[in-house]
Amino acid sequence: MKKVIKNGMIVTATDTYEADVCIENGVISLIGENLSTQDAEVIDASGCYVFPGGVDPHTHLEMPFGGTVSKDDFETGTIAAAYGGTTSIIDFCITKKGEPLQNSIDVWHAKSKDKAVIDYGFHLMIGEMNDRVLNELPSVIEEEGITSFKVFMAYKNVLQADDETLFETLIAAKELGALVMVHAENGDVIDYLVKKALADGNTDPIYHALTRPQEIEGEATGRAATFTGLADSQLYVVHVSCADAAKQIADARDKGIDVWGETCPQYLVLDQSYLERPNFEGAKYVWSPPLREKWNQDFLWNALRTGQLQTIGSDQCSFDFKGQKDLGKGDFSKIPNGGPMIEDRFSILFSEGVKKGRITLNQFVDIISTRAAKLFGLYPKKGTIAAGVDADIVIFDPTVERTISKEAHHMAVDYNAFEGMKVTGEPVSVLSRGEFVIRDKQFVGKVGSGEYLKRAKYGSTFKRESPLTT
Amino acid sequence: MKKVIKNGMIVTATDTYEADVCIENGVISLIGENLSTQDAEVIDASGCYVFPGGVDPHTHLEMPFGGTVSKDDFETGTIAAAYGGTTSIIDFCITKKGEPLQNSIDVWHAKSKDKAVIDYGFHLMIGEMNDRVLNELPSVIEEEGITSFKVFMAYKNVLQADDETLFETLIAAKELGALVMVHAENGDVIDYLVKKALADGNTDPIYHALTRPQEIEGEATGRAATFTGLADSQLYVVHVSCADAAKQIADARDKGIDVWGETCPQYLVLDQSYLERPNFEGAKYVWSPPLREKWNQDFLWNALRTGQLQTIGSDQCSFDFKGQKDLGKGDFSKIPNGGPMIEDRFSILFSEGVKKGRITLNQFVDIISTRAAKLFGLYPKKGTIAAGVDADIVIFDPTVERTISKEAHHMAVDYNAFEGMKVTGEPVSVLSRGEFVIRDKQFVGKVGSGEYLKRAKYGSTFKRESPLTT
Amino acid sequence: MKKVIKNGMIVTATDTYEADVCIENGVISLIGENLSTQDAEVIDASGCYVFPGGVDPHTHLEMPFGGTVSKDDFETGTIAAAYGGTTSIIDFCITKKGEPLQNSIDVWHAKSKDKAVIDYGFHLMIGEMNDRVLNELPSVIEEEGITSFKVFMAYKNVLQADDETLFETLIAAKELGALVMVHAENGDVIDYLVKKALADGNTDPIYHALTRPQEIEGEATGRAATFTGLADSQLYVVHVSCADAAKQIADARDKGIDVWGETCPQYLVLDQSYLERPNFEGAKYVWSPPLREKWNQDFLWNALRTGQLQTIGSDQCSFDFKGQKDLGKGDFSKIPNGGPMIEDRFSILFSEGVKKGRITLNQFVDIISTRAAKLFGLYPKKGTIAAGVDADIVIFDPTVERTISKEAHHMAVDYNAFEGMKVTGEPVSVLSRGEFVIRDKQFVGKVGSGEYLKRAKYGSTFKRESPLTT
Amino acid sequence: MKKVIKNGMIVTATDTYEADVCIENGVISLIGENLSTQDAEVIDASGCYVFPGGVDPHTHLEMPFGGTVSKDDFETGTIAAAYGGTTSIIDFCITKKGEPLQNSIDVWHAKSKDKAVIDYGFHLMIGEMNDRVLNELPSVIEEEGITSFKVFMAYKNVLQADDETLFETLIAAKELGALVMVHAENGDVIDYLVKKALADGNTDPIYHALTRPQEIEGEATGRAATFTGLADSQLYVVHVSCADAAKQIADARDKGIDVWGETCPQYLVLDQSYLERPNFEGAKYVWSPPLREKWNQDFLWNALRTGQLQTIGSDQCSFDFKGQKDLGKGDFSKIPNGGPMIEDRFSILFSEGVKKGRITLNQFVDIISTRAAKLFGLYPKKGTIAAGVDADIVIFDPTVERTISKEAHHMAVDYNAFEGMKVTGEPVSVLSRGEFVIRDKQFVGKVGSGEYLKRAKYGSTFKRESPLTT
Repeated sequence: MKKVIKNGMIVTATDTYEADVCIENGVISLIGENLSTQDAEVIDASGCYVFPGGVDPHTHLEMPFGGTVSKDDFETGTIAAAYGGTTSIIDFCITKKGEPLQNSIDVWHAKSKDKAVIDYGFHLMIGEMNDRVLNELPSVIEEEGITSFKVFMAYKNVLQADDETLFETLIAAKELGALVMVHAENGDVIDYLVKKALADGNTDPIYHALTRPQEIEGEATGRAATFTGLADSQLYVVHVSCADAAKQIADARDKGIDVWGETCPQYLVLDQSYLERPNFEGAKYVWSPPLREKWNQDFLWNALRTGQLQTIGSDQCSFDFKGQKDLGKGDFSKIPNGGPMIEDRFSILFSEGVKKGRITLNQFVDIISTRAAKLFGLYPKKGTIAAGVDADIVIFDPTVERTISKEAHHMAVDYNAFEGMKVTGEPVSVLSRGEFVIRDKQFVGKVGSGEYLKRAKYGSTFKRESPLTT
Repeated sequence: MKKVIKNGMIVTATDTYEADVCIENGVISLIGENLSTQDAEVIDASGCYVFPGGVDPHTHLEMPFGGTVSKDDFETGTIAAAYGGTTSIIDFCITKKGEPLQNSIDVWHAKSKDKAVIDYGFHLMIGEMNDRVLNELPSVIEEEGITSFKVFMAYKNVLQADDETLFETLIAAKELGALVMVHAENGDVIDYLVKKALADGNTDPIYHALTRPQEIEGEATGRAATFTGLADSQLYVVHVSCADAAKQIADARDKGIDVWGETCPQYLVLDQSYLERPNFEGAKYVWSPPLREKWNQDFLWNALRTGQLQTIGSDQCSFDFKGQKDLGKGDFSKIPNGGPMIEDRFSILFSEGVKKGRITLNQFVDIISTRAAKLFGLYPKKGTIAAGVDADIVIFDPTVERTISKEAHHMAVDYNAFEGMKVTGEPVSVLSRGEFVIRDKQFVGKVGSGEYLKRAKYGSTFKRESPLTT
Repeated sequence: MKKVIKNGMIVTATDTYEADVCIENGVISLIGENLSTQDAEVIDASGCYVFPGGVDPHTHLEMPFGGTVSKDDFETGTIAAAYGGTTSIIDFCITKKGEPLQNSIDVWHAKSKDKAVIDYGFHLMIGEMNDRVLNELPSVIEEEGITSFKVFMAYKNVLQADDETLFETLIAAKELGALVMVHAENGDVIDYLVKKALADGNTDPIYHALTRPQEIEGEATGRAATFTGLADSQLYVVHVSCADAAKQIADARDKGIDVWGETCPQYLVLDQSYLERPNFEGAKYVWSPPLREKWNQDFLWNALRTGQLQTIGSDQCSFDFKGQKDLGKGDFSKIPNGGPMIEDRFSILFSEGVKKGRITLNQFVDIISTRAAKLFGLYPKKGTIAAGVDADIVIFDPTVERTISKEAHHMAVDYNAFEGMKVTGEPVSVLSRGEFVIRDKQFVGKVGSGEYLKRAKYGSTFKRESPLTT
Repeated sequence: MKKVIKNGMIVTATDTYEADVCIENGVISLIGENLSTQDAEVIDASGCYVFPGGVDPHTHLEMPFGGTVSKDDFETGTIAAAYGGTTSIIDFCITKKGEPLQNSIDVWHAKSKDKAVIDYGFHLMIGEMNDRVLNELPSVIEEEGITSFKVFMAYKNVLQADDETLFETLIAAKELGALVMVHAENGDVIDYLVKKALADGNTDPIYHALTRPQEIEGEATGRAATFTGLADSQLYVVHVSCADAAKQIADARDKGIDVWGETCPQYLVLDQSYLERPNFEGAKYVWSPPLREKWNQDFLWNALRTGQLQTIGSDQCSFDFKGQKDLGKGDFSKIPNGGPMIEDRFSILFSEGVKKGRITLNQFVDIISTRAAKLFGLYPKKGTIAAGVDADIVIFDPTVERTISKEAHHMAVDYNAFEGMKVTGEPVSVLSRGEFVIRDKQFVGKVGSGEYLKRAKYGSTFKRESPLTT
């Protein structure tokens, strides 16, 4: 049966207007004033915004890390995501040196199939570059629809690739139509500082931050951007945490280099002092890059305002405080890196961004949904509200106030990084391809209903006339 | 009778999708697939883009300058604008020191009423700041709906205001909800250089450019931006011609200052060498700021790409080559400043921008229409295609090739600044509030049908939640 | 009788070495190891540095300001200077619009002749530029040896010149071989802010600082530097107080513009909080530009270290707290601007700069003496220790500790801005052209013994081969 | 017998004055007017400058590279250096991974002893960092007086160290009082580009330049500077060839980081087009970093003027065109990197720098001699003219004109990189510790008379009071 959303205020990355939305066969068929409700289920959105469903371009579900595995899997993780207004995620498929890429992709399909409640795609990690890898990439793109490759500049001797690998990946990506993503921190310097800190007996969680200074996130970001310019390729810098890195991205863009930047909710509202919390509680806030000194937050917000940063990923990678994070008691370097963030992207960006006047409502939609859909080849099926697109829709009450807490959240972990934070605005109902996943704040979806997203090549969905830019 | 546009590709500042558009009572009532055409006039847009009508935020129609008056008035000027895809203009109302502002506004109403074929509004020049002016401003905003004030930093002893006036205007604008616009060149330095050039016998048109170096456009732009930051106000820099000025705008934005920048088609495709054309032909290219060395063009295009510049105005201010421009034979300083630009904004920005991959199609719409509508309080009536907004629509054929020339143009002047330039893409039909103004490339509108636009306060139409930014 | 300084450590802007110095006829005749002391007065400099006498390029002695006159005249001022290690000053000759420049110069000669105890020269204020002024400048340079012109960008309606005057002065200075100096603050914005503050009842001394924000010192500095580049001339920015201004100077220098910057002891060690002292004590710290937030100090020190700032002037302009500063009780804008600084340049720069490792000993000499001597055409007679130069010498004990206070100082005013500050290092004896002015910390000089310094053209003393730079 | 230099114009890094210089026991004993010539050999320096002998901080004599050995050894190389006004060199001692450092130092002593005609010291290459190396460093500094360590960021799989090694070296250097030097190019990117070029059949010398773009010199420079700031250490960037790298150095210095930059004569006057010379002649200009586009030269000269670059090394590493350079025929990557530069530093810097007004005469001395002497712990024995210092002196005729050519030069190679260049100014006589090495343009020195220079720790010779800066 078709559905008609009535009385809501539709918001896209550019427009804000009152109109009804008609949904048929999972797709938006009609937008207009006073649509007929004959033979239709009517959804009343009075007092609510009608947003396109969120696109979270950065998750690590059931991800192996440091001898353990991140707690939320594709079932609990996507349910939590849906509660938070997200209807598409792109998860990172981790590969192993010396092994066929397809093996890793198969592992990721196995993790996600029959579990996800919303649609999902994969990015692919590139840890080495050689003829075997190069030969495999075309089918990764054409068959699997994986059009973004991630290179780690940190985690020495584990995930870190050398500069030649990064440079070759940029060259290859350009030829193949993929977007290169980097984790930009200098792993060599971190490696030295961590060894030094431990040797000096500095083992508390705060040393996680102190051994990863923001200068070397800036350095690595600038390095990757320089390579991108030389390769005439395209780059997406994940989880930008600080002014140093954001400034490098802005400088590269001002030089005409095709660089994009993602930040995360945690960098916008939390700061380094959280890692100093007593009783090992600082471990709850251990991820990489680490939380920074508070003054960086204004810089990041302004970069979102001016468009020098463009997206917000959750970097969801959750570990229980008890049983996982405590692997690092007495040695901060053994604390699993990551946190539970997938559920609160909308609330934090809306409450701290829009309500506090730092970004506009339309920028909110662009940052939370549209831009990621475009950059990663999901648009126009995902990322907007318009006739003909997937009916991935969030009905959002901008006035309700709530307090974030582990009691209320739907992630599988035993703490919430934003515990106690008061936010304004919350998704009321969430539809995926026209079907309710969340209805009146209750999960009503079906495990396994999420579909795998084969994604289009970089640029193909937003550069109709153009070889160059968005 | 209602109209239905069929088979077109709708493009907004964020979306690109195929759907039908239904127009009723001058407003878009419905957007969807396979709309019913019963009782409707069908407009076939096969192979065409369906754009929102252009908003030109910078025109000088029937403008007195240097003892003459710009040739195109609100009739010829708006007809030419409509041919070029523009459905709203905002013209500059020039005031006189010591006189009530309302007097000047009345003069501008008299010039435009019963003449314009598309909708129009006014900006107001502020040449002095004192109690009388301050007292008059609230009614200018509330009664006239004029919510943007222009201050000249150049034209010493004529239009130029001093720094205190600019600063006070920024303070007042913030309190009243207006946007301050500046012509940013240092008039004092220009004044000296012009006198020096003439004294040295350097009287040819090229000296117009050589006596207005881009360093002092950069200087004035930075000065105005600094004042804006101190006043915590908002600034829009008109006709940014060069890298020096664009860089100052970007720097101010990166510091969190609310500054916007407009460039013009002429700065994107023409350069300083045009002023060296023989037989006084250089005079055709005399306007201020002057055309710059060619390398600046890449900088401006990139600033449009990254969003550090946001709009494109025509700065239309046309004078005949014979009879007007030749007032400056033997003395470049007497050449009336300005050119005929109102008609070719769409063609140039589309052909050189989108077709050459410098900006995306959605950025094109934002730059040519949406952003100006938002900044100047016309949105959402103007500036987008969505249910409920004015049916100001351009049906645009992106494949047709044509050559710009004075023979083909509709402006009232005897030359075209882009003479001989080949462009791809052209408006086929243009509707203003649902009525055809241009149909199949012929003017079918009605002189005087354009309505005066009272505009909303700065920020009120795009900052629903936010005191700060777009 | 000749004199031989024994056992000292000679320090120049580049060298540090132990050797004896022989003085004959007011000039250094010989430097070497174990010089003969036959027929010579021996001066023992054991444990001391032997520095060239300081050159203070920025004083205002007996200067009219705001209805009063600065307290220290050429007698008390130069005695205090000598106590502080300074053997040459350059004072600002203030001119009046519409009057011959020579009149003002004559006034300044009358003030200084028969009073100064060390050598002195004049800078000349340019308040307007026209044919009369232009015609008078050659004789100012040739006859009077005044080769530096000062333009005020602040003090609206009093000293402030417009931009055209500044630009013309730069052009003229280049042709004539003079150095243009600017007081760089935007007087228009200050004028508005001061009126606004007073209208709002904000009358305390702290509002002196709050109505002169550092952004507009940066703005004016950048504006003057831009003009200098356009004029291909030379610029010296006096009393740089903050990071914004220092950054503009560095940027201009990096672009190849010939710009120099002077800071003052007060900006290096005092900060804006001093203006908040109770009981109107803040008035003691009122001068322009005002003291800044403390974080600027590191920026200024680093700029001295890297050479992006080059000199340190005192900006001596002393007023009694009782009887003069109190003219501004109830209206901060009536507080005479200026402070007593002439005596403590050496102590503060040495103690805070060299002893704390911020600059080297050789940089100290360059900053306090050599660079100013070169820039203002006094070198090589002044500014170094070498055979053939004037025996202006300071014997400096780097170990003695003392506390600065009004009780101990020799300026004519009733307070000291550095009251209570502990410093290490103090001049023991000071010679001017071979004669003791200060001997064992006692004044032994002769009032009126100071000679007027006709100065060489800009560049002539340090650019033997070069049209460009030092 | 003592010597007296009469009638010359003494020039130091700060002073320029006429005086006589007396030399006794290899040391300057006296400077003054009309020195007695009794019992002295009189050297007439009429019309000449009397400079301190040059310090060349960057030579590679008898250096193994790419299967061959650089042609000039410590005999021919130092003779050529002396002809060119250089009296001290510091050569790079290349080490091997896994071998004791002392072994390499012993090799370098063997190469130089009994050969050098002027004094010489060594820098030490650090290729790896581990406990063995760390344990050896104290004796390298204390026993050998080697207080500067060189790390290569380029030459992948040959000399290149990883980032952790560089960072550890900076930490160690700070603790030990050494200065870290870097060859700053990204070897990984170069490695890829070289392989790619060769695979594409691009084998000519010009591809040497095209595979080492200046962006990655800038990148590596910025990376090293960032590490230095984090380590609170000190850095000296060798052979800065381009604006990108010079800008990174300036930015780091402006942030307060202790970074120094050296450029070379070749980058100031030659450009990339030389590598395109036909008949494989481009190979004569193959060294790393490569020659750059000509516009970089202005940037480098300005950085010398402002002091953002401080020294000029020759990077002497000469190979015969026939028999050595031609190893790379058909494969540019096999051309031995380096050129014959040791002889022409003075002539080029004086002629192009001082004579053309880009730097002053005093800056010339600072750049060619004093600054390197200070940074590398040779001052005050070397680097200036003052009582008590080594009598390393150059008597320099600033008016003589000559043409540089391989026929006239004294290096052992079969070509000169500056062939045909006309220069003004030439050393006439050169003394090393008071003895003539060059007299009236003829070599009169003694092979093996040069002494090994044990150097003081970083900062110890120029920071008498200061832990921080020069």
